[in-house]
Amino acid sequence: MPSKHPLKGSFIVDLKPGDRVTAFLLVRHKQLEPFRDRSKGEFLTLMLGDHTGQLLARVWEGAPELAETFNEGDVVKVAGDVEEYLGRAQIIVNKLRPAREDEYDLADFLPATEKDVTAMLGAVEAVIAGIADPHLAALVQHFYNDNDFRARLAQAPAARRVHHAYLGGLLEHLTEVLTLAESVLALYPEINADLLRTGALLHDVGKLREYTWARDIDYTDEGRLIGHIVLGDEMVAEAISHFPDFPDELAMRVRHLLVSHHGRYEWGSPRRPKTLEALALHHIENLSAQLNRFKGLLAARREPGQAWTDYDRLLERQLYAGPGDELSIEESSQME
Amino acid sequence: MPSKHPLKGSFIVDLKPGDRVTAFLLVRHKQLEPFRDRSKGEFLTLMLGDHTGQLLARVWEGAPELAETFNEGDVVKVAGDVEEYLGRAQIIVNKLRPAREDEYDLADFLPATEKDVTAMLGAVEAVIAGIADPHLAALVQHFYNDNDFRARLAQAPAARRVHHAYLGGLLEHLTEVLTLAESVLALYPEINADLLRTGALLHDVGKLREYTWARDIDYTDEGRLIGHIVLGDEMVAEAISHFPDFPDELAMRVRHLLVSHHGRYEWGSPRRPKTLEALALHHIENLSAQLNRFKGLLAARREPGQAWTDYDRLLERQLYAGPGDELSIEESSQME
Amino acid sequence: MPSKHPLKGSFIVDLKPGDRVTAFLLVRHKQLEPFRDRSKGEFLTLMLGDHTGQLLARVWEGAPELAETFNEGDVVKVAGDVEEYLGRAQIIVNKLRPAREDEYDLADFLPATEKDVTAMLGAVEAVIAGIADPHLAALVQHFYNDNDFRARLAQAPAARRVHHAYLGGLLEHLTEVLTLAESVLALYPEINADLLRTGALLHDVGKLREYTWARDIDYTDEGRLIGHIVLGDEMVAEAISHFPDFPDELAMRVRHLLVSHHGRYEWGSPRRPKTLEALALHHIENLSAQLNRFKGLLAARREPGQAWTDYDRLLERQLYAGPGDELSIEESSQME
Amino acid sequence: MPSKHPLKGSFIVDLKPGDRVTAFLLVRHKQLEPFRDRSKGEFLTLMLGDHTGQLLARVWEGAPELAETFNEGDVVKVAGDVEEYLGRAQIIVNKLRPAREDEYDLADFLPATEKDVTAMLGAVEAVIAGIADPHLAALVQHFYNDNDFRARLAQAPAARRVHHAYLGGLLEHLTEVLTLAESVLALYPEINADLLRTGALLHDVGKLREYTWARDIDYTDEGRLIGHIVLGDEMVAEAISHFPDFPDELAMRVRHLLVSHHGRYEWGSPRRPKTLEALALHHIENLSAQLNRFKGLLAARREPGQAWTDYDRLLERQLYAGPGDELSIEESSQME
Amino acid sequence: MPSKHPLKGSFIVDLKPGDRVTAFLLVRHKQLEPFRDRSKGEFLTLMLGDHTGQLLARVWEGAPELAETFNEGDVVKVAGDVEEYLGRAQIIVNKLRPAREDEYDLADFLPATEKDVTAMLGAVEAVIAGIADPHLAALVQHFYNDNDFRARLAQAPAARRVHHAYLGGLLEHLTEVLTLAESVLALYPEINADLLRTGALLHDVGKLREYTWARDIDYTDEGRLIGHIVLGDEMVAEAISHFPDFPDELAMRVRHLLVSHHGRYEWGSPRRPKTLEALALHHIENLSAQLNRFKGLLAARREPGQAWTDYDRLLERQLYAGPGDELSIEESSQME
Amino acid sequence: MPSKHPLKGSFIVDLKPGDRVTAFLLVRHKQLEPFRDRSKGEFLTLMLGDHTGQLLARVWEGAPELAETFNEGDVVKVAGDVEEYLGRAQIIVNKLRPAREDEYDLADFLPATEKDVTAMLGAVEAVIAGIADPHLAALVQHFYNDNDFRARLAQAPAARRVHHAYLGGLLEHLTEVLTLAESVLALYPEINADLLRTGALLHDVGKLREYTWARDIDYTDEGRLIGHIVLGDEMVAEAISHFPDFPDELAMRVRHLLVSHHGRYEWGSPRRPKTLEALALHHIENLSAQLNRFKGLLAARREPGQAWTDYDRLLERQLYAGPGDELSIEESSQME
Repeated sequence: MPSKHPLKGSFIVDLKPGDRVTAFLLVRHKQLEPFRDRSKGEFLTLMLGDHTGQLLARVWEGAPELAETFNEGDVVKVAGDVEEYLGRAQIIVNKLRPAREDEYDLADFLPATEKDVTAMLGAVEAVIAGIADPHLAALVQHFYNDNDFRARLAQAPAARRVHHAYLGGLLEHLTEVLTLAESVLALYPEINADLLRTGALLHDVGKLREYTWARDIDYTDEGRLIGHIVLGDEMVAEAISHFPDFPDELAMRVRHLLVSHHGRYEWGSPRRPKTLEALALHHIENLSAQLNRFKGLLAARREPGQAWTDYDRLLERQLYAGPGDELSIEESSQME
Repeated sequence: MPSKHPLKGSFIVDLKPGDRVTAFLLVRHKQLEPFRDRSKGEFLTLMLGDHTGQLLARVWEGAPELAETFNEGDVVKVAGDVEEYLGRAQIIVNKLRPAREDEYDLADFLPATEKDVTAMLGAVEAVIAGIADPHLAALVQHFYNDNDFRARLAQAPAARRVHHAYLGGLLEHLTEVLTLAESVLALYPEINADLLRTGALLHDVGKLREYTWARDIDYTDEGRLIGHIVLGDEMVAEAISHFPDFPDELAMRVRHLLVSHHGRYEWGSPRRPKTLEALALHHIENLSAQLNRFKGLLAARREPGQAWTDYDRLLERQLYAGPGDELSIEESSQME
Repeated sequence: MPSKHPLKGSFIVDLKPGDRVTAFLLVRHKQLEPFRDRSKGEFLTLMLGDHTGQLLARVWEGAPELAETFNEGDVVKVAGDVEEYLGRAQIIVNKLRPAREDEYDLADFLPATEKDVTAMLGAVEAVIAGIADPHLAALVQHFYNDNDFRARLAQAPAARRVHHAYLGGLLEHLTEVLTLAESVLALYPEINADLLRTGALLHDVGKLREYTWARDIDYTDEGRLIGHIVLGDEMVAEAISHFPDFPDELAMRVRHLLVSHHGRYEWGSPRRPKTLEALALHHIENLSAQLNRFKGLLAARREPGQAWTDYDRLLERQLYAGPGDELSIEESSQME
Repeated sequence: MPSKHPLKGSFIVDLKPGDRVTAFLLVRHKQLEPFRDRSKGEFLTLMLGDHTGQLLARVWEGAPELAETFNEGDVVKVAGDVEEYLGRAQIIVNKLRPAREDEYDLADFLPATEKDVTAMLGAVEAVIAGIADPHLAALVQHFYNDNDFRARLAQAPAARRVHHAYLGGLLEHLTEVLTLAESVLALYPEINADLLRTGALLHDVGKLREYTWARDIDYTDEGRLIGHIVLGDEMVAEAISHFPDFPDELAMRVRHLLVSHHGRYEWGSPRRPKTLEALALHHIENLSAQLNRFKGLLAARREPGQAWTDYDRLLERQLYAGPGDELSIEESSQME
Repeated sequence: MPSKHPLKGSFIVDLKPGDRVTAFLLVRHKQLEPFRDRSKGEFLTLMLGDHTGQLLARVWEGAPELAETFNEGDVVKVAGDVEEYLGRAQIIVNKLRPAREDEYDLADFLPATEKDVTAMLGAVEAVIAGIADPHLAALVQHFYNDNDFRARLAQAPAARRVHHAYLGGLLEHLTEVLTLAESVLALYPEINADLLRTGALLHDVGKLREYTWARDIDYTDEGRLIGHIVLGDEMVAEAISHFPDFPDELAMRVRHLLVSHHGRYEWGSPRRPKTLEALALHHIENLSAQLNRFKGLLAARREPGQAWTDYDRLLERQLYAGPGDELSIEESSQME
Repeated sequence: MPSKHPLKGSFIVDLKPGDRVTAFLLVRHKQLEPFRDRSKGEFLTLMLGDHTGQLLARVWEGAPELAETFNEGDVVKVAGDVEEYLGRAQIIVNKLRPAREDEYDLADFLPATEKDVTAMLGAVEAVIAGIADPHLAALVQHFYNDNDFRARLAQAPAARRVHHAYLGGLLEHLTEVLTLAESVLALYPEINADLLRTGALLHDVGKLREYTWARDIDYTDEGRLIGHIVLGDEMVAEAISHFPDFPDELAMRVRHLLVSHHGRYEWGSPRRPKTLEALALHHIENLSAQLNRFKGLLAARREPGQAWTDYDRLLERQLYAGPGDELSIEESSQME
């Protein structure tokens, strides 16, 4: 398991009872508990993890004081021993301190894209550079020329669970949408290319506010209460207000792309596509999402040597990966 | 048929072949057509209407020049004779000129609320005055202290067809929602009263941009492409940006009220209610809308003396008004 | 935990290993089991509970004879000791006998309304007194003047789980519906007030037969096989047969209120509303039910300090209670 | 076209311009209209029909007086001439008087079963005679020993349009259900035969109140507002109340058959089948209804020589009758 | 528990701790596991079962070598002792060897029909003999005269879980469909009898490829990926290709029966019934399936003495079996 | 209107009263009708059309004999005069004879693709040439090396109405699917490229039997009764049977692509995608179909100068084309 940071130390997936461990790990849960013999005070139970898994850990001594020095969601440096307890491994912590920001890479603690982030950003920029309409070009650059926006875009997931649900997933999804958009434009010259590209580039900007990925990939409160479609529309409307000459009709078309990109009411779309560009964006976006979802399920939910994955409750089916290894997702992935 | 303006003249509903007519009427359609004998040039075919109906009209002489002087959607003053043609009445126009703004009242040309607009505005203001939270009060006043907003609110319909689909309908709907909200607040003190009132007052502000009611009640382009839910959310978010101290969490709750008030994905709601206030608002709002819809169907789509209305395609049913006149909608209305 | 009866003794929620307990408790399950050493005969395993929870209990001696003296669903007086077994508390019973009816209050054993039952009954009577139509007044009084009916109405839950699912819940739901009905009547004078009030008062009478609340709140067999809508309609039709002069058309309207009050086929409604009164009743009834459901979920399924409740499978969402305590349901409830 | 009554005279389907007609016909609509020259008073426009079709008819002289002598829905004896007017045939009435009850057979005016009603009633009686359970036998006889019930059952349609929508259709449907029930009983001895037969015999008794078939086959008011399922349950519950010894559990099972026989909520069923008998009844009943519906569509909505029927909006499809005549419905029908 | 084979030995359901066992059992799972003291090598954990249940079994000695001699899905002869471990019984294996094919009957290891297979096959043959149309008769015989087809048909289940999900279930379902078809033909002579019988006989032939029943009843890969409807259509189309004179129109009608027999798109039917025969087949087939499903749930999922079964997730309801034993499914079954 | 054949003559769209016409036209309907004065015998009423429209035509003399010489669906050469009758133009035929096959091009009579058929066929061949797997390559060539298959593929429509509903539409759809597939393959190397290309090339082969395009584009009988999915699967299964070495697992995967390409049960798909290739094919195919559908609606159902199309009943919405001409579909099309 290659680390993203030289100091990372062990990965959870590799730990076995009997191992001595030194590693940077993320604190997922933290709880002080009383000893049975209450006169002994309290010990600390932790759930420590990285992107390969998580383990229970115990701090027997000095727990109350130590517990004050870090919070859930922090990365900590831990030294200890792996023991077996009730048939499962756990870490008996000898030393623990909060990590400094330069001692770790968040990508070691959350699943992350295997694609080259810089290359993907470059591909996105090439598309932006090709937008001829000055209003649309300015609107897109309003977002993409903002360094903070780009930094967050490079990290954000595209979903909590279903598709591209890992760091960099949103950027990966974006590049797929842009690639497919070019194919569609080649087939349907009736489509306004600048508009479709703009829609592709901006359709998911609201996800930067819908998700948080500090500890786990999860919804933000405003993500749950308002959602990325409406948040994204607000962001785009606000951006357009900076360009007094931006044509009203064009603004309306861009916003229609945002608010209709989920395609169907039952998928939370407040509008359904009513322009050729909106229809194309919806189907392209969905194609990218569904392919990634299937790919992920085939890789993750298949027992070794089994032709079929486990039953997926949302898809209401099992997926077929085939009997042989020669067609396996893992191998193919390594060929990329 | 009482006029809203002393100059109105005849109403369409009262015209019969043989009548001589002088009236202010709205031009719904306008078309120059060639005489069969093309050497005679062109005549003008008009569809003229008011809120009681519409009639075909012809201008045989001077048509091309006259046609230059007014547009579809204008109110014109017409003098002419009613004749029968192919079994239907039509107006042979003798004189026609565009009306001045002070010569007519738009309410004579479109269906309008029978409630007292001033009284309804007063009731709304009383609710606004009762909002204790300073942030919410300021936000609501940002809209309601704007004279243009109030003027448009007093005129806007609440829908194109289904419910409160007449001038002043939005205000009527609003006052119903506010009244029902007070009942709910009395029953459920757990509900944040200021928040529910704010949601009630702002939930449909987007309809001021979703509909146009100059000639017919119809959707605007942005109404069709973006919709009042998203437009309203944008308006509220923009308004909140004027108050730097407006708490983020409160802003999120207010916007959640906007984006979830349709209650179900399949009704175009990008979010479903997740707070007690949002749930209450959705059900109250729907109750007002559905009651008005039924009331309108019972009044309009019932043959005289029939217990049942015509079949309504959207409701997929006929409604029952009862056999006797003593229970009729019309009488009840007069008792108000 | 305040008792509804002076003799109640301990509540389950307060018991800890090491406690000595004397309490009236309800027998939820009862089972004789053989000792491993079968020569020792049988012991008794009980599940004893009150409205705060339930605990396992054991009777080691004289079990077969004791088991003959009471049934599941009975309230018993228990004396014993609380011990820990496999990490969970259980009661070792020393003495146990069935309780007499005057020794307990059923409300101590099942969740119950926090509203004042007498006050609610008074409010209902005030509505009944206001019904002017003599036929409708007589019909309603046929039910409400029956002491047994009133006694059962004061105790019945409105549902097994979803809303107002506690003793007195049906009455609480009824008073909410009546209150909301008055608001609607003020807004829509076209609605026949006597009819709507009658519908509100009778729409759920079938629930007195749909549910049983002796031990748990559960469905009766006829509740599951026939349902409260049809049972209620039968009760009303039977009552009407006592009034030979009751107008047929009015009877039909009343029964339509009963059979359409669930509003939609998919909600088990054999008819959908076709009169203004039926539409109003359906939406009012649903508003009361949904608000109570949300309120209950927000109070019960929220971890302390969490802004969000657990995921609710039926609503398919988490609810938002907000971060602070100042908005919490509990506090608000106490302010009532 | 064979008449059901010797006096019937011509059938509508056979009338051509130039014919002189004497016939008993049903008055579907009646309207006095003024002559253009109003001094001439009024003439009478009628829509006269029998089960083969309908024609417009005019009475030019003495119309106001004549109009007093009969109502819509009456059968009248008419003498007149068939003329062509605006490309369509109409009857110029010379003489017209109301018919006496013994002068016509209702079956000539409404579509009616082609099966032998007496034979069908005999088959039903044989099933009744085979019910061994004394309670169920008494309950069924309570209905079937009532001459008025039997007379109405022999005439009633099973639906307004969809299936068995003709006089005697309900009886035809009933005999089909009984026949299929015997097949099911032979296959599944676990089914309580007396209960299934009782359910089959009583499941649609509410249709005697749901439909009216005096002039057209149409819904009654209580049919629309309450529906045959609830009406039938009430009739059965009322009948059971006449037998004090009728076991409660058995009553509940019978009523469950009534209230669940539509099988699905979305088909207006307040309960879904929960017993083997109820499941069997639902599927048997639906099989009979659907077969009759298809048969009717294949016979009625197929152009001569066409393999396919017209598109049926409710079934959302065209049906295939095949290219040749040897498979045609008509021939098959004649072979019965 | 009567054995289908004289050598069967004990059934799982009868084994208790302390028993000595000799039995033929099916290996459902097989896994070598290391002893804690790894120097001791590996032991074998097995799940052994028959149609009455399954038990864990251990082989402590010579496990690796023994494990080579049989596979999951094999029947083995086992001798050993039943012990209790962690509160559950398990078999300590003393001897184990693979069984020969003549030492067991598959029906002892999987649930199987209680009907007489020979009698059912005879009934099917009688229907085949009655098909008059020579093309249809030849087509049906193409399948049924094939001994391998008949042998497999006699064994196949009709489903994995929902209905007739046991060996011989497909044949049982088939005979029910044929019986019901005769009832329908007696009622609707318009139906082409030869065609309906052919459809009934062939509609599920694809299930011979959709299911495997060697070890468990499960889907085959092509069952999951293609499904019995399409597989069956292919088998029938291939069979028809052997008869050059088979009329095209008739072939199309037969195939329509296959591809529409699930009746609704949402039930995986690529076509909906468009002929009278297809409609009849769909409803008959569904009636048989649903009755068997209910019967199975009532027998299997009911606690002794309980009126109601457990909640069934797919049917979304509990079923009612009634309170007494006199109506119980078991007794009724014994009366067959 | 450019002709596809030099002899075509006039197009329907260009004919006006007063014109003399000589043209090749398709006979859509043909009917002999009696003159009012029946002694005069019969005249012939025809509906003649080409892909620009259709006109009524009459043959007054020699009609019965002439009617014998051609059938509905034939192309005929017509000479005559255009007259006005009841306000509509009709052709009075002077001469008429059936056309020879070399005198016309079917594309003049039905709507046809505007793309270059030869170029599209070339693109398809290039994809076929790139299939590396010898089994899949052989399977695809089995179809595409058949000249009759290629000829029919070049002509077939992809649907009757919804998308690519014109001659050559199926080929156009196919090339779009192939182009999009290459984009997807570039993004998802896990997808088996040969398999996806094979699926793309074969997924709609059943449409060659589902549609007829001789006179109108319409369903065949087997198209309606069996459908292109099952027909195509049968064609592919039959083709595979010619290759004894074709791997079973591969055959199953190919057929899964066919039977799941509609993606959802409710869209008539007997299976839903369970492999990555099947998922990709479904979404690609749908993207092509939906884009073409929108493009067609925008071009055809928009009034000149209107921003919105008419309401489309299937899409349940109006589409937005924008206000100006600069974005219009027509201009864009000309720029291709």
